[in-house]
Amino acid sequence: MYRIKLPVIILNLKTYLQSTGDRAVKLAKQCEETAEKTGVEVAVAPQFTDIAPVAKAVSIPVLAQHIDPYEAGKYTGHILAEAVRDCGAVGTLLNHSERKLPLDRVEACIKRAEKAELLTVTCADTPETCKAVAALKPSLIAIEPPELIGSGIPVSKAKPEIVTEAVKGVNEVDSKIPVLCGAGITTGSDVGAALRLGTKGILLASGVVKSENPLNVLMDMANAILTSNPSD
Amino acid sequence: MYRIKLPVIILNLKTYLQSTGDRAVKLAKQCEETAEKTGVEVAVAPQFTDIAPVAKAVSIPVLAQHIDPYEAGKYTGHILAEAVRDCGAVGTLLNHSERKLPLDRVEACIKRAEKAELLTVTCADTPETCKAVAALKPSLIAIEPPELIGSGIPVSKAKPEIVTEAVKGVNEVDSKIPVLCGAGITTGSDVGAALRLGTKGILLASGVVKSENPLNVLMDMANAILTSNPSD
Amino acid sequence: MYRIKLPVIILNLKTYLQSTGDRAVKLAKQCEETAEKTGVEVAVAPQFTDIAPVAKAVSIPVLAQHIDPYEAGKYTGHILAEAVRDCGAVGTLLNHSERKLPLDRVEACIKRAEKAELLTVTCADTPETCKAVAALKPSLIAIEPPELIGSGIPVSKAKPEIVTEAVKGVNEVDSKIPVLCGAGITTGSDVGAALRLGTKGILLASGVVKSENPLNVLMDMANAILTSNPSD
Amino acid sequence: MYRIKLPVIILNLKTYLQSTGDRAVKLAKQCEETAEKTGVEVAVAPQFTDIAPVAKAVSIPVLAQHIDPYEAGKYTGHILAEAVRDCGAVGTLLNHSERKLPLDRVEACIKRAEKAELLTVTCADTPETCKAVAALKPSLIAIEPPELIGSGIPVSKAKPEIVTEAVKGVNEVDSKIPVLCGAGITTGSDVGAALRLGTKGILLASGVVKSENPLNVLMDMANAILTSNPSD
Repeated sequence: MYRIKLPVIILNLKTYLQSTGDRAVKLAKQCEETAEKTGVEVAVAPQFTDIAPVAKAVSIPVLAQHIDPYEAGKYTGHILAEAVRDCGAVGTLLNHSERKLPLDRVEACIKRAEKAELLTVTCADTPETCKAVAALKPSLIAIEPPELIGSGIPVSKAKPEIVTEAVKGVNEVDSKIPVLCGAGITTGSDVGAALRLGTKGILLASGVVKSENPLNVLMDMANAILTSNPSD
Repeated sequence: MYRIKLPVIILNLKTYLQSTGDRAVKLAKQCEETAEKTGVEVAVAPQFTDIAPVAKAVSIPVLAQHIDPYEAGKYTGHILAEAVRDCGAVGTLLNHSERKLPLDRVEACIKRAEKAELLTVTCADTPETCKAVAALKPSLIAIEPPELIGSGIPVSKAKPEIVTEAVKGVNEVDSKIPVLCGAGITTGSDVGAALRLGTKGILLASGVVKSENPLNVLMDMANAILTSNPSD
Repeated sequence: MYRIKLPVIILNLKTYLQSTGDRAVKLAKQCEETAEKTGVEVAVAPQFTDIAPVAKAVSIPVLAQHIDPYEAGKYTGHILAEAVRDCGAVGTLLNHSERKLPLDRVEACIKRAEKAELLTVTCADTPETCKAVAALKPSLIAIEPPELIGSGIPVSKAKPEIVTEAVKGVNEVDSKIPVLCGAGITTGSDVGAALRLGTKGILLASGVVKSENPLNVLMDMANAILTSNPSD
Repeated sequence: MYRIKLPVIILNLKTYLQSTGDRAVKLAKQCEETAEKTGVEVAVAPQFTDIAPVAKAVSIPVLAQHIDPYEAGKYTGHILAEAVRDCGAVGTLLNHSERKLPLDRVEACIKRAEKAELLTVTCADTPETCKAVAALKPSLIAIEPPELIGSGIPVSKAKPEIVTEAVKGVNEVDSKIPVLCGAGITTGSDVGAALRLGTKGILLASGVVKSENPLNVLMDMANAILTSNPSD
């Protein structure tokens, strides 16, 4: 299974028109350029239909936005872990606030992903649910308070205690699982704040996708990671 | 919007390993070969991740297996109509027995598809729900009794009255919507029976995907269409 | 099965605190008083927990707000048709905008209700979905555009064409199914408008439940029914 | 909030016809008789429609089988925590294998229940999900492997390691939360085995409901609790 290098920037392309098709490939190349110039790990999570072309175009890690827990078989319209992997993804987001799963399916999806050698970035809304998810042993956990998603208000600044409690709760259950900070991050300064609260990177979307100059934003964020104290 | 030529064979690739990745492309090429040799319309519905490579490899119509009703925007892990279209699909299956939708979403998905110029093959389990779906104006309707899906027992033979009632019910609401026959079809003989019951083609999956010689089965089915009376 | 007398006023008590427990019984008695004084049929749909006490307290028809399609058996936390009937309900709402169902479950619930001799008031959002629902043979259909629910803006005035199209569409499929008008009705005048558009009554909630004087509102609405032309 | 006395027997009445309406009241009285004769805590979880009559008929704790996370308001067909409480329940089951919830809703339901002063018995399928649920601070946790529910094969005997791992996992997160043993329990001997594995009681259904002599089974189970070592 691919191991994400920390700290990491994960760009969720969601289903914005600005990040569909050719524009997904273009954004992925800007992520790759950022990674190459700074040495910081940058991963990208395109729509299912864009995984194959994105994975062909770049050498950075590509993630799916979701997988279903089912084995291969008769499941029309579902997302097969092996299909995602075979077209070039090394992992998947799970349980995003916009694609929530029953508790038992979070576990089933994590196990399915492991079997297909896909890493999992499992999202949760609150410190308590982050702690809960830690018991299910995902590769990484992202804390994303839904009220701040797409708001431009970084959780690392608006509600830093949510982030520190999430990190603390996850550590109590399994100290080897890194926590990422999501929701509202738009600048390098937000990234620095997120790392100082104990997270090992960020999961973001609109702050880059809807920016006029995505490469500049990505470079600003990667540089914020470089200038944060790596020994933390 | 692409107009399906009738009668049609639609091959749903589901999430079988035998129809994932390169094997999806191979099956799509066999569909194309069948269409070229016989002049019968053959369409293929691969997994989302395989739409782009399949659409590049063949010139027959490609369908998604599902779309979500949402406009472009912040919807992690969802299926955007425009994304499906931009990578080469001309339409989508909807409300398959393995991917059922709330009634209001069936309508919303059909409208979303129309807006993105995607045709819709909307599935239903019973004559009554086929008739109901007709009120929502999909491009085509497929009757698929779930107990026969993947059974190798064709609904056209096991329960012909289900098929004739579905055709009758749909006609009462909107006589312009063709009805396809799904569930359990494995031979050309099954296809002939389906057409004699008033359907305009078939939607099938395992009968071809899990066959030892998919091309032979497809050719057998296309020839059954050629030898059925087109004036019916 | 109980046959609703038309035109009818159906009061959905939802899960407002003003219509929970003893207050559900009180509102049901005001519905009964209205029915007794005017001769107009008034039915009430309390929460599941209130069906038994409400049905004991009044002699007007009592409806559940939902049932599940399952037969009796091992279904923790679900709504059994027989349980609803045995504690005094004569029917159920289905597919309300706040409790939407997959298309095949709308059909399954209607069949389950019939088997338990419960009448069904099946809701739908649009003229198209009302027409679709008609194919599934519910006892009555209620058109409730979700954007007007609880708005105080009656669909019969804001968008009369939605109501007339719903009535027309349902009639095309099955002219024996009465259509009720929901969403935004608060006065007798709204009720009169609804009847003139071809509906056979109303389904409402907040207009009565949140009113300062529910009995007055109910009497106003029942009188509007009496003064509308019954030969229409 | 009511505090369950440990060890406890919780009888889930599900939606069996044998435990609907008058038969729910009868079974609840047999639970009460068992509690009175043995001093062992016995609680009962009837269908929503039966909570009011059951709570009037007996003085043992009554639980709902589910609640929804919503505040009072416009939620047709949903289960309001206050409605459940006002008709006599002191708590609720949550996330039963037959009524699974998204992870964030498990948390929301537990918080809603607390606000309405209802205790929560939150179910989970596996040791890992039991541990996860512990982070959300329910009153009690019940481990119920779905493949054994209703099987007559007690998890305490078939897969004792599942029970001990669930107890261990929950203890690691919050040692104050008691774990109950569910699935397949039909005799006093099964109950004894469950307690020796570290659980503080049992959650069961068919073993009593479908028994020819429910009172005998309940008394057998309560006596097994009395003869187990209370100092454990």
